[in-house]
Amino acid sequence: MSVPLLEQLVEAFRVLPGVGQKTAQRMAYHVLERGRDGGRRLAEVLGEAVEKIGHCERCRDFSETPLCPTCASASRDAHLLCAVESPADRLAIEQATGYRGLYFVLQGRLSPLDGIGPRELGLHTLGERLAEGEVQELIIATNPTVEGEATAHYLAQLARQHGVRPSRPAHGLPLGGELEYVDRGTLSHAFGSRGEMP
Amino acid sequence: MSVPLLEQLVEAFRVLPGVGQKTAQRMAYHVLERGRDGGRRLAEVLGEAVEKIGHCERCRDFSETPLCPTCASASRDAHLLCAVESPADRLAIEQATGYRGLYFVLQGRLSPLDGIGPRELGLHTLGERLAEGEVQELIIATNPTVEGEATAHYLAQLARQHGVRPSRPAHGLPLGGELEYVDRGTLSHAFGSRGEMP
Repeated sequence: MSVPLLEQLVEAFRVLPGVGQKTAQRMAYHVLERGRDGGRRLAEVLGEAVEKIGHCERCRDFSETPLCPTCASASRDAHLLCAVESPADRLAIEQATGYRGLYFVLQGRLSPLDGIGPRELGLHTLGERLAEGEVQELIIATNPTVEGEATAHYLAQLARQHGVRPSRPAHGLPLGGELEYVDRGTLSHAFGSRGEMP
Repeated sequence: MSVPLLEQLVEAFRVLPGVGQKTAQRMAYHVLERGRDGGRRLAEVLGEAVEKIGHCERCRDFSETPLCPTCASASRDAHLLCAVESPADRLAIEQATGYRGLYFVLQGRLSPLDGIGPRELGLHTLGERLAEGEVQELIIATNPTVEGEATAHYLAQLARQHGVRPSRPAHGLPLGGELEYVDRGTLSHAFGSRGEMP
């Protein structure tokens, strides 16, 4: 009784994260009512991106070229390497900090129960890279979750094996936050690792 | 420094309703990381939908064919016609009620300030249709907003001109709601149009 192509479109929108039946419907109607040009463009770019964007062979980040622009850049500091779990984490660091070193994107975290071991995270290539001797410090910026911590521990050992200094971003109270609303784990950690006031 | 195609993709996702920079980024990364097949499918269906889905020449709803399946169906009651503002409203009625009549989708509401008059809503074709004499009742299901009410008023006059009985869905307290949380306008209206208990 209804338009099959429209139903297919609603169904197709549900592949997006956080998009359920109702939102997918709203997106489909919105594109058809008010955003046909944008929809056409999205279809083109999405189709092209899905085919052309692969992974940088050096840092495993998304890249259209075999080597991503960051890895190919001569102006980045090759002594610093920052390991992150996902491309989104890499982008967050790139946008928020003045970091000028290179990255290594794990595309996941160690999770033996899900069959994700060192090989799936490309840690053999990371090992080879650390063995080259150019990297002096490995900044381990995995997420502060159980699996992220386990991954960080593994990476730190790997770095030490190759004589590279492992480091990680400071953990503690977020700036602008209020003690009252900080979760227990963070507060306890921040309290335990307090430093002398300058 | 970053992948241009990826940036284009993030930008393209922003055409969707309620999607800002951050959500668009999440969608782009999600599709590339875990949903390439779904992304490919979305690109295809979206491209096809934007080109092929037009409007039914009789009810103005979205349709791939000149006449939509509902208008073309012989099993719908042609004596009943329901006017709604948008295809989404039509779908909501179709899914929630057992209505077996036909629809007329205004694709908007009267809004002189935005240059939307009777012609933009296709009311001349609606007038011609009412003049054919088959429709006996016009159910006016516009939204209960100021513009929706004005549109309803106009449609009711149009119906009476052609000897068609105008009607509208009942307004009042929503089922399952609590008096305390109902907005004033609704409560006042429901109180004023109270009926005797059966």
